[in-house]
Amino acid sequence: MGHSELLSYDNPVFAAYAFYAALLAVKMVFVQLWTGVQRSKHNVPAVQEDAYMHSKDSKPSENENVERVRRALINDLENIPTFLIISLAYVLTRPTLSIAIWHFRLFTVGRVMHTVAYLLALQPYRSIGFTISLFVHVSVVGQIIIHAL
Amino acid sequence: MGHSELLSYDNPVFAAYAFYAALLAVKMVFVQLWTGVQRSKHNVPAVQEDAYMHSKDSKPSENENVERVRRALINDLENIPTFLIISLAYVLTRPTLSIAIWHFRLFTVGRVMHTVAYLLALQPYRSIGFTISLFVHVSVVGQIIIHAL
Amino acid sequence: MGHSELLSYDNPVFAAYAFYAALLAVKMVFVQLWTGVQRSKHNVPAVQEDAYMHSKDSKPSENENVERVRRALINDLENIPTFLIISLAYVLTRPTLSIAIWHFRLFTVGRVMHTVAYLLALQPYRSIGFTISLFVHVSVVGQIIIHAL
Repeated sequence: MGHSELLSYDNPVFAAYAFYAALLAVKMVFVQLWTGVQRSKHNVPAVQEDAYMHSKDSKPSENENVERVRRALINDLENIPTFLIISLAYVLTRPTLSIAIWHFRLFTVGRVMHTVAYLLALQPYRSIGFTISLFVHVSVVGQIIIHAL
Repeated sequence: MGHSELLSYDNPVFAAYAFYAALLAVKMVFVQLWTGVQRSKHNVPAVQEDAYMHSKDSKPSENENVERVRRALINDLENIPTFLIISLAYVLTRPTLSIAIWHFRLFTVGRVMHTVAYLLALQPYRSIGFTISLFVHVSVVGQIIIHAL
Repeated sequence: MGHSELLSYDNPVFAAYAFYAALLAVKMVFVQLWTGVQRSKHNVPAVQEDAYMHSKDSKPSENENVERVRRALINDLENIPTFLIISLAYVLTRPTLSIAIWHFRLFTVGRVMHTVAYLLALQPYRSIGFTISLFVHVSVVGQIIIHAL
């Protein structure tokens, strides 16, 4: 396979990358919308002008349930976008298909597990999910550094 | 057009992508600098060692105007980087030029509208901007999943 | 060099990009893990179910040292992922190798300086690091806009 076809849906490694990247994007959108659901349910607008969406006398304030979703999402931001960018450089290292798919799959499973466990306050499952994704991330980064040197 | 030229400025879809990605990066830089302006104006350093920039006796604290800008920026972080990565995979699905440009254009307009409406406390315009960008994001993600399967 | 080889480790500009992108990813992972170290040290769990990791009667609360690390990481999120995506489009503008390497190197140095200075409360070094990276970011964005038009 020539260089030209590595970033193409004809390359099954890239197709797998694109598929899991899309799943992770969907997951992040769900968490973002879930923040809105929690704000509405617990009557906590983000800013004063949103109060009409809940009830006119509700005020922006800290709420444990809303903060929980926001923390889950910020943890996503700390991990997912960088992983997705770095993984493009990983696709270009021409990894074995099965190994690459397991990288993307485990990272995705780890992040979904992290989010679900965060929202349901389930430890140590949140830490396990986080750690799985972190190991995959470090593996990808390591392979890129080896390739780039 | 061969595979090799999809990620190239010779491909008008990619050139449009790069142009709107650059605009969104500029927008994010402006919001970030605007946080500093608000901190200075309202005399709210982020941390104690920044106090000299404002006045020596000012203390880090919550300020509604500063929080508003920070929330606008965090909402950007939740949406823009992931969209930009995902959109690279979208460019590789060989979308029709006019459709692709409208995707990038509407997403950018939606995000700019969201930011401006957030800073000026204008509802429902903030929600409308957010929703426009969200629909574009979901459309891009959907097309990638179809292509990757 | 044909279009097809620009995003390839055979292109020294891309190899440099991948190397510095990997370094920045490692840096972000360290800051993220450092948050956990600070939470443990200062006995401040992020959420109630983490209390067992510290001591059972510790409660989630604001702690200056933890907030400092979190702010450093959020500043990373505001700058690094977007820069890494935008830089891929920059690699495709066929920049001169030495100029491109200096862009990636200065951005990385600026971000590392920003983080170290944030954690150690060293001003004006934090601002200097931030500004260096910002200038590189703006330079990259400007070159993309010129190329895309």
